Amino acid sequence: MPPAPPADFLPARHPWDTLWVNAHLATMTAGAASPYGAIENGAVAAKDGRIAWVGPLADLPGRAEDLAASVQDAGGAWITPGLIDCHTHLVFGGERVTEFELRLTGASYSEISRAGGGIAHTVRATRAASDDTLYTLAARRLTALMAGGVTTVEIKSGYGLDLEHELRLLRVARRLGANFPITVHTTLLGAHALPPGVNDAPGRARYLDLVCDAMIPLAAAEDLADAVDVFCEGIAFTPEETARVFDAAQAQGLAVKLHADQLSDTGGAALAARYQALSADHLEYTSDDGLDAMAAAGTVAVLLPGAFHMLRETKLPPIAGMRARGIPMAIATDCNPGTSPALSLPLMMSLACTHFRLTPEEALAGCTRHAAQALGLGASKGQLAVGFDADLALWDITRPAELAYWLGGNACVGRVAGGRLD
Amino acid sequence: MPPAPPADFLPARHPWDTLWVNAHLATMTAGAASPYGAIENGAVAAKDGRIAWVGPLADLPGRAEDLAASVQDAGGAWITPGLIDCHTHLVFGGERVTEFELRLTGASYSEISRAGGGIAHTVRATRAASDDTLYTLAARRLTALMAGGVTTVEIKSGYGLDLEHELRLLRVARRLGANFPITVHTTLLGAHALPPGVNDAPGRARYLDLVCDAMIPLAAAEDLADAVDVFCEGIAFTPEETARVFDAAQAQGLAVKLHADQLSDTGGAALAARYQALSADHLEYTSDDGLDAMAAAGTVAVLLPGAFHMLRETKLPPIAGMRARGIPMAIATDCNPGTSPALSLPLMMSLACTHFRLTPEEALAGCTRHAAQALGLGASKGQLAVGFDADLALWDITRPAELAYWLGGNACVGRVAGGRLD
Ligand SMILES: [Zn+2]
Ligand SMILES: [Zn+2]
Repeated sequence: MPPAPPADFLPARHPWDTLWVNAHLATMTAGAASPYGAIENGAVAAKDGRIAWVGPLADLPGRAEDLAASVQDAGGAWITPGLIDCHTHLVFGGERVTEFELRLTGASYSEISRAGGGIAHTVRATRAASDDTLYTLAARRLTALMAGGVTTVEIKSGYGLDLEHELRLLRVARRLGANFPITVHTTLLGAHALPPGVNDAPGRARYLDLVCDAMIPLAAAEDLADAVDVFCEGIAFTPEETARVFDAAQAQGLAVKLHADQLSDTGGAALAARYQALSADHLEYTSDDGLDAMAAAGTVAVLLPGAFHMLRETKLPPIAGMRARGIPMAIATDCNPGTSPALSLPLMMSLACTHFRLTPEEALAGCTRHAAQALGLGASKGQLAVGFDADLALWDITRPAELAYWLGGNACVGRVAGGRLD
Repeated sequence: MPPAPPADFLPARHPWDTLWVNAHLATMTAGAASPYGAIENGAVAAKDGRIAWVGPLADLPGRAEDLAASVQDAGGAWITPGLIDCHTHLVFGGERVTEFELRLTGASYSEISRAGGGIAHTVRATRAASDDTLYTLAARRLTALMAGGVTTVEIKSGYGLDLEHELRLLRVARRLGANFPITVHTTLLGAHALPPGVNDAPGRARYLDLVCDAMIPLAAAEDLADAVDVFCEGIAFTPEETARVFDAAQAQGLAVKLHADQLSDTGGAALAARYQALSADHLEYTSDDGLDAMAAAGTVAVLLPGAFHMLRETKLPPIAGMRARGIPMAIATDCNPGTSPALSLPLMMSLACTHFRLTPEEALAGCTRHAAQALGLGASKGQLAVGFDADLALWDITRPAELAYWLGGNACVGRVAGGRLD
C-alpha cells in the first residue's frame, strides 16, 4: 500500500477558491428587483475563475473558512462587476497634445496642420513606432484604466490604415491581453479613415478592397480580431461602403460594430441594426427610425460622453428615445488622442450623468451589463451572478451612486480579474 | 582635548539637502521668457524646506553628489511647483449623493427636499458629526487631492453657521494641516448662507452680528482663520452685508475673499476690489467695471470650472476681459458636496481648457503662481525659484500641456512638500 499523499495533494476540502465578505454588492443583474441589484451585507465567491456563489452573507451555506480556501475581508467596500470599457482606440503612437494646446492658443488651421494635426498625424507616428513602443505607450493607458476598476477593455485598430500596420496594432492589443490581468477584446477598424495620401475615387476603392479582401480575412485567419468596426460619417465612409465592409466581416463570421451618426444622421444606426451589429456607437444624430431598428435588432447604444465633452457638442444623443424602446445603453471612454484623451471610466459615468442626464444606475449598467452586451459577452461578463466570470471591482464608497458623483479621485480599492486579485 | 565628534555630528559638507536631477522643470516663474518657464534637462535643489537652486543641469555648480546630501533621480519626469487648490469647502458631514441621484431620476422638488437637499442638509449633518468624523471624511478628500499633486490647499468653513460649529470646522482644518504633509490655509465663511430656520429680517441681522462680533474676533484670537470669505449673491448675502463682514475682518487684520457674481451680477467683483480682496471667485456674471476694479486692486480671479460644469452653466466668466486687463486667473476645485464634488485639480485644468478655453499654460499658472497669489502666498509658493518653498509635484508626462489634456488618470508620480518627499 503506497503512503498517503501529502496534505497539499489531497483534493481541496473547500468548495470555493476565494470568498469576499464584509461587503455590499451591486450585482447589476438583469431584471433585479432592487436598484443596482444591490445586496447590502453580501458575499461573493469564486471558483476556477467564475462566480460560484453570490448572496446575502446571512444566507452563506456554512462557515466562511469551511467554504473557501481564501476568505477576503472587503472592509465594507461595495463590490461591482469589474468595469468594461467597450470602445477604445488605446494603441497609437505620437501625441496630439501639441494640437490640443495650439487650438487653445488660437493658432490658425495652417499652423496646426504644419505642427501635425488630425488622424493623419497619428497614423504617421503610429506606423513609425516600433511594436515595443506602441505596447509600452498603450500599457500605460491600460494601467490607468485598470486603476479605475476596468477588467475588460475593447481595443480597436484604426491608426495603421494599411495591411501591415492594422494587423500589427491588433497584435499589440492581443499582447496586452496576454500580459495584463484584463480581458482584451479586439476590433479591426481598418475603415477608420482613408490612409494619408488617398484622396481620389480609385484610391478609395482600392483601399476598401484592401480592407475587405485582405485585412478582414487575414485578421480572421490569425484570430486577431473579435469584431469589425467602421467609421460611417460624411467625413469618413458612406453607408454603402460600410455595408461592403460588414458583408466581408460576416463572411468571416466576425461580429460588427459601427461608429454611427456622431456628426450627422447618415442612417448609421439603422444600417448597424440591419447587420445585427453588436453596437452602434456615438449616436448623437440618430433618428427615431434608427432607434426603432436598433431596438428590433437588439443592438446596444454605446454612448461616448468624453468625445461629446471635448468637442463641446450640444446635440445630445436621443436618450429618452432609447429609454422608451428599452435599448441598452453602454458608456465607454473612446480613449483616443484626438477627441477623447480619457483614462477613467468612472469619470465617463460622471460625464454621462452631467451631459446626458443618465441616472447613476444607468451609468453603472452602461459600464457593466450593457457594455458586456456591446462586446457580445453578455452571457459571461458584467453581472455578479453564478456562472459569470469572477471579474470584480471594489470601491471605497457608501452608495453605488458615488461612482458617478465624484469628479476625479479614484475610489477603486481593489480589482479581481478571473477570480484573481491584482 | 576632547575626542572628535562622530562624523554624523560634523557640520554638513553638502550645501543642499536634496537635489532632483534627470528632470524637466516647468518653473512657472513670473515673466519667464519660455512658455511655462520651462527648463528641459534641469535640476532643482532644496535646503531647509526652501528651493536653494534651480536651473539647467549643465549649470550645476559642481558634482551632484558633492552638492546635496540626497540626489534624487526624477526619471525624466516633469517637475512643477506643487499644485495649490485655493478654494475648497473640504470639511463637511453627510452626503449629497442621494440628492444628486434623485435629481437625475426626475424626482420632484418636494421629494428631494424630503430626502434632505441643499446646504441646510449639509449643515445639519455637519453639526451632528463628531470632530473625528469630520476629520476622517475630510482626510480622505485631502488624500485624493494630494494624490493629484496638491501641496497647498485652502479650506473654508461655512457648514456650521453658528459660533460653535464654524470655529470647530476651522479647528478640523488646522488639524489636517498639522498632520498631513500639506500647507492648509483656512478661511472663515460664516457668511456662507443663513442658518437653517433663520428667515426673517431680525434673524438675519442677528446672524450677521454673530459673524461680525463673535465669529471673526474669536477666529482671529485663536488664530483659526487666515482669511474671511462671504457668499455675495441674490440667494445669500447682499453687498451691504458683505461690506459689513469685510469691515469686521479687516478690523482684525484678516484678509478677505469673495464668492462673487456666480449667478448674477451683484457688483461683487468691484466690492471685492474695493476691499483689496485677495481674490474674487466664480465671476461668471462680472461686468467690465468689476474687472477694471479688480485689475486696479490686484485682486485675483478664481475660476471654478467644476461648479460651472456640474450646474451645466452656459454663461462663461469674462476670460477675454481678464486677459486684456492682466488679471491673474487661478483655478480651484471648489470641492463641496452640492455643486462641485471635485477631487482632482488636474481635472479642473482640463475643464478650464474645455469649458473656459484657457490655454494649458494658463491652467497650470492657475493652479500654481496665481493660486498662491489668491491666498496671499505669492512670495513663497507657486514658483520654482530660489527662496520659494520647496513644494514640488513630479509628473510622468512628456510636455506640460499634458497636465490639462488627459481626462482622468493620474500622471502625478511624486510630491514634495517643504523639501520632503512623501
Ligand atoms: Zn471611436
Ligand atoms: Zn465655494
